[in-house]
Amino acid sequence: MRIGVIGLGRMGGNIARRLIDGGHECVVHDVDAKAVDGLAGEGATPAHSLEELIAALPAPRAVWVMLPEGKITAEAVKRLGEALSPDDVIIDGGNTFYKDDIDRGTALLEKRIHYVDVGTSGGVWGRERGYCMMIGGEKEVVDRLDPIFATLAPGVGDIPKTKGRDSRDARVEQGYMHCGPTGSGHFVKMVHNGIEYGLMQAYAEGFDIIKNKASHQLPEDRRFDIDVADVAEVWRRGSVVSSWLLDLTASALAGDPGLDGFEGRVADSGEGRWTIEAAIEEAVPADVLAAALFARFRSRADHPFSDRLLSAMRFQFGGHKEAAGPEEKKTKT
Amino acid sequence: MRIGVIGLGRMGGNIARRLIDGGHECVVHDVDAKAVDGLAGEGATPAHSLEELIAALPAPRAVWVMLPEGKITAEAVKRLGEALSPDDVIIDGGNTFYKDDIDRGTALLEKRIHYVDVGTSGGVWGRERGYCMMIGGEKEVVDRLDPIFATLAPGVGDIPKTKGRDSRDARVEQGYMHCGPTGSGHFVKMVHNGIEYGLMQAYAEGFDIIKNKASHQLPEDRRFDIDVADVAEVWRRGSVVSSWLLDLTASALAGDPGLDGFEGRVADSGEGRWTIEAAIEEAVPADVLAAALFARFRSRADHPFSDRLLSAMRFQFGGHKEAAGPEEKKTKT
Amino acid sequence: MRIGVIGLGRMGGNIARRLIDGGHECVVHDVDAKAVDGLAGEGATPAHSLEELIAALPAPRAVWVMLPEGKITAEAVKRLGEALSPDDVIIDGGNTFYKDDIDRGTALLEKRIHYVDVGTSGGVWGRERGYCMMIGGEKEVVDRLDPIFATLAPGVGDIPKTKGRDSRDARVEQGYMHCGPTGSGHFVKMVHNGIEYGLMQAYAEGFDIIKNKASHQLPEDRRFDIDVADVAEVWRRGSVVSSWLLDLTASALAGDPGLDGFEGRVADSGEGRWTIEAAIEEAVPADVLAAALFARFRSRADHPFSDRLLSAMRFQFGGHKEAAGPEEKKTKT
Amino acid sequence: MRIGVIGLGRMGGNIARRLIDGGHECVVHDVDAKAVDGLAGEGATPAHSLEELIAALPAPRAVWVMLPEGKITAEAVKRLGEALSPDDVIIDGGNTFYKDDIDRGTALLEKRIHYVDVGTSGGVWGRERGYCMMIGGEKEVVDRLDPIFATLAPGVGDIPKTKGRDSRDARVEQGYMHCGPTGSGHFVKMVHNGIEYGLMQAYAEGFDIIKNKASHQLPEDRRFDIDVADVAEVWRRGSVVSSWLLDLTASALAGDPGLDGFEGRVADSGEGRWTIEAAIEEAVPADVLAAALFARFRSRADHPFSDRLLSAMRFQFGGHKEAAGPEEKKTKT
Repeated sequence: MRIGVIGLGRMGGNIARRLIDGGHECVVHDVDAKAVDGLAGEGATPAHSLEELIAALPAPRAVWVMLPEGKITAEAVKRLGEALSPDDVIIDGGNTFYKDDIDRGTALLEKRIHYVDVGTSGGVWGRERGYCMMIGGEKEVVDRLDPIFATLAPGVGDIPKTKGRDSRDARVEQGYMHCGPTGSGHFVKMVHNGIEYGLMQAYAEGFDIIKNKASHQLPEDRRFDIDVADVAEVWRRGSVVSSWLLDLTASALAGDPGLDGFEGRVADSGEGRWTIEAAIEEAVPADVLAAALFARFRSRADHPFSDRLLSAMRFQFGGHKEAAGPEEKKTKT
Repeated sequence: MRIGVIGLGRMGGNIARRLIDGGHECVVHDVDAKAVDGLAGEGATPAHSLEELIAALPAPRAVWVMLPEGKITAEAVKRLGEALSPDDVIIDGGNTFYKDDIDRGTALLEKRIHYVDVGTSGGVWGRERGYCMMIGGEKEVVDRLDPIFATLAPGVGDIPKTKGRDSRDARVEQGYMHCGPTGSGHFVKMVHNGIEYGLMQAYAEGFDIIKNKASHQLPEDRRFDIDVADVAEVWRRGSVVSSWLLDLTASALAGDPGLDGFEGRVADSGEGRWTIEAAIEEAVPADVLAAALFARFRSRADHPFSDRLLSAMRFQFGGHKEAAGPEEKKTKT
Repeated sequence: MRIGVIGLGRMGGNIARRLIDGGHECVVHDVDAKAVDGLAGEGATPAHSLEELIAALPAPRAVWVMLPEGKITAEAVKRLGEALSPDDVIIDGGNTFYKDDIDRGTALLEKRIHYVDVGTSGGVWGRERGYCMMIGGEKEVVDRLDPIFATLAPGVGDIPKTKGRDSRDARVEQGYMHCGPTGSGHFVKMVHNGIEYGLMQAYAEGFDIIKNKASHQLPEDRRFDIDVADVAEVWRRGSVVSSWLLDLTASALAGDPGLDGFEGRVADSGEGRWTIEAAIEEAVPADVLAAALFARFRSRADHPFSDRLLSAMRFQFGGHKEAAGPEEKKTKT
Repeated sequence: MRIGVIGLGRMGGNIARRLIDGGHECVVHDVDAKAVDGLAGEGATPAHSLEELIAALPAPRAVWVMLPEGKITAEAVKRLGEALSPDDVIIDGGNTFYKDDIDRGTALLEKRIHYVDVGTSGGVWGRERGYCMMIGGEKEVVDRLDPIFATLAPGVGDIPKTKGRDSRDARVEQGYMHCGPTGSGHFVKMVHNGIEYGLMQAYAEGFDIIKNKASHQLPEDRRFDIDVADVAEVWRRGSVVSSWLLDLTASALAGDPGLDGFEGRVADSGEGRWTIEAAIEEAVPADVLAAALFARFRSRADHPFSDRLLSAMRFQFGGHKEAAGPEEKKTKT
């Protein structure tokens, strides 16, 4: 089918390409005219304005918005809402806060414009592997867009079938799921990213423990000096902790076992934060997911005020000087 | 090659079977004579005593010990150490504490008996999928046992190759790794299990947040009622959180979406605990791995003393009564 | 001075009493007419409606709202805002979310009605010990109310003076602080409660560790059987962990060393939750405060879905049965 | 009574002084002859060797060992054990691991020498405020030393009496407690320090949240700019979080509100670590105490390997660059 795509960055561009590869017609727009022209060279119909894009789409229209930033997405959806017609549909494929989706969906419904929120996982690998999609919105509208989702999804591939799913929604095995009403797609994607943080931190701590294992008390020929790149690789085969994130870890460590190319300042997007806020709203304990988020905050602070306050208290009650470095001995004999 | 296997439980029995399938000769022993006879019917040579087992093996002998319990394994290794001859090798495939390995290896070396510690991951799936093995011990001895490890390992399979590994140890891609001197195999396996706890808890918290999402403030047709079995399935395809543990989660939820077959009392083996102790010894922060361990402790306690103490303090300073149930309202307006 | 007090529960009633004891005139109102009449018997002027209360106060009026619940407080402030006149002031002494304060203050300012948010700590002990108050609002308005705050505050008492404060605001040493503009009082009180949760949980975990110390491997005359009530008492004298919460712990344990009078279901008010949300907004790591909050959530859930999911995964990969009880052995030898 | 004191550092010197002030005779020894002579000038009997110290004490002797380091203490106890006679008693007032106490006590008992472990809290303030003491050892021996403990303890002071303690051990209200057999004193002191870490971290996180509160979205006259030194001071009066650690925090902030005199590298002694190990041995959840310990580890590491691994994974799956600084925006609109 024919669909508009707004936002041709890393994600949006590849989504358009995968759709074109799958036989769809894409009308593409971006504030960066070069990006538009570039994709025109790969088979897309260029649109150098929102109006041009809308004019190039048959009613009822479908426009996929793939923009990086909360405010930019909000603005684009707002402008689309003003320009589109009843029965058209706006698809937000970005990482919007699910409560914002609900507000937007409600507002657009007054104009009888539909809103579909799609949580999209797959990163830079999505064009090749396909995108895992978590979709929220009205049933009829999601069904109408099925050809788009079917093309973007990874498909069954060679992933072993899960037993006991025969009576269940077959689309899920293709890699896309209609999660429920507006907002539910981004809600599931939000938790997905919250889990992602937790998984990443679990690996990170484990490898840190292996990396720091010293056994100086042992004779030299019996000391541990474990190759973390090999550890990551061996765990990919038959172990309980095998995963795609481990595959990526093995790749990263094979090329740079000391990870000297990185400084260790780890960004976090909104989803990790909103996941904890959702847990708090629901009174669900989320110790691991919160600890993973806080580790990222901490990675970006040189020394938080909290650390200095600990030092100040220790000085007050014990006259203790600050520690010089990472090493601290404990005094079991 | 010809090898002895002691301990024919879930793990040991399947290891013997996979070795036999791979063309090796197994002399098998267990305190349970039926287990020995059963495996004899599958091609193993039965041994109804340790002495019988030793007598049936050519020097230098190799004996794989696969016993469940610290003390039982320790006792078996001790008895083997007394009965075996110089240049023989004892392989401990269980979950021994790596510092115990170092002590045992040192003691056995005085008799010139070799000791190899093998961390073995793969669970009940290992016979079919192969076992991921993390091996500690002397190079010559580990090399001598290579045919055994090569058979037990999963092999390359259809897992995509990691780039940049061309100059590295090829055995690792087969699914087994010589991690270093005695103890290092079980050390890596220990951290593996520590990570495993962290990964599991990350998924568990995330699914709990999805499961508990209520949106009662919304009209009925716009409430979230998200199918967690489908979520687990869809994430298997193209998402960042895909993993073998997620595959298992999808299986479990497909059959029993409410997990009503489980009560929620979660055991922990020693490795998760020792991982935190290792982190503490090394002064490595391990917030996620520790939280995952504590969640298991908590799952087995009905109400710890700590909970009651909180209630007692709240009563003291505020006259507060205890909460009635899981629901607590917060009072943002 | 003459002041209105709305809400005569545990907190509001004692605040009125302490004000009357301090020579102020209180016009009191509550939906419960008995509470109003009761306090009239203790020297207050009864008001059986909002209108009556307003009529009994001289302009510019001051009304202290001390109501337990977000919505009830919001409704009372709204009705007061409609009924009061320019230059009157509404004091919210409850536990309102500080962003709601900012919204309310802004709305009331349009009518030139002032709004002061007062975080009030002291619990059931406040009437006797005085209330620690954290105050947000316009300087002139807070100054106008100073006689009220001075009476409610604990005063200097016999608490040792902090060195280096000579040039600082003297009111702070009396136990009340003008924290800044509207909302800042409840913001500081919110973090106060967040810290309170953390402190309580630290004690709770520590006493749990002492309580559970078993030393069964030792001969009977050398086993530990430590009296936690005595531990709490001894720490009150000269130790680094002495605190008011420890005093309360000692009281609780002296009367009921096993805390058998409590079940262990621990409520949480909004402040602990909002503290974590504030930390997340600011990207400040708050591992301890979050863990303390989650421990309360967990205390109210019998077995969260997360626990059952862990059991389900363990069954899937290892055929593991669930644990029977709190005891788990580790297998170091 | 007459007692030997070995180790005249910050703690040992003041203990000797408080004993002398209380009318006891102290025979003092230290490797630093100047420390010995200095204390001789304050009324102690100098001993320039262990032998001299032993010779100057009447049988049965009591020797208080107050040395900073596991190995140094162990060595001193060993030498004393060799030099002392049956019925003499060695008191270890330091921070020895309680399992080491049990081993030492057992070894010394073979020679009929007694061993008493005393956990001593009070820091640099102890000489003036008295020391809170947690004591492990045989009843008769602890009773024999009662005059020493009574002098060192803070005494009842002006701390309000806890109700319901009338039938309980009166020594506890003086600030010292016989916790049980050998090791139990240091066990209780260990948990004390574990709690101390948790309390400190709770305050540290809370003040960090106040310090980092920005409200740039508000007009200038309504922004928060909260004085943390005043917050600490006001909470000392009537609030639920008042404590001795808060008193110290108020002192530190009054002198240096930005804590610019500290870098934020926070040492940890063994007790915090052993507390977590004890929790793990007992299967008691200790999320807050562990998080407090890990925060100290983290404060001493510039960027742990774990941080770099997170960055590496993010680059692998999303092509993400590392974060530039502490600020990260979330994208709720």
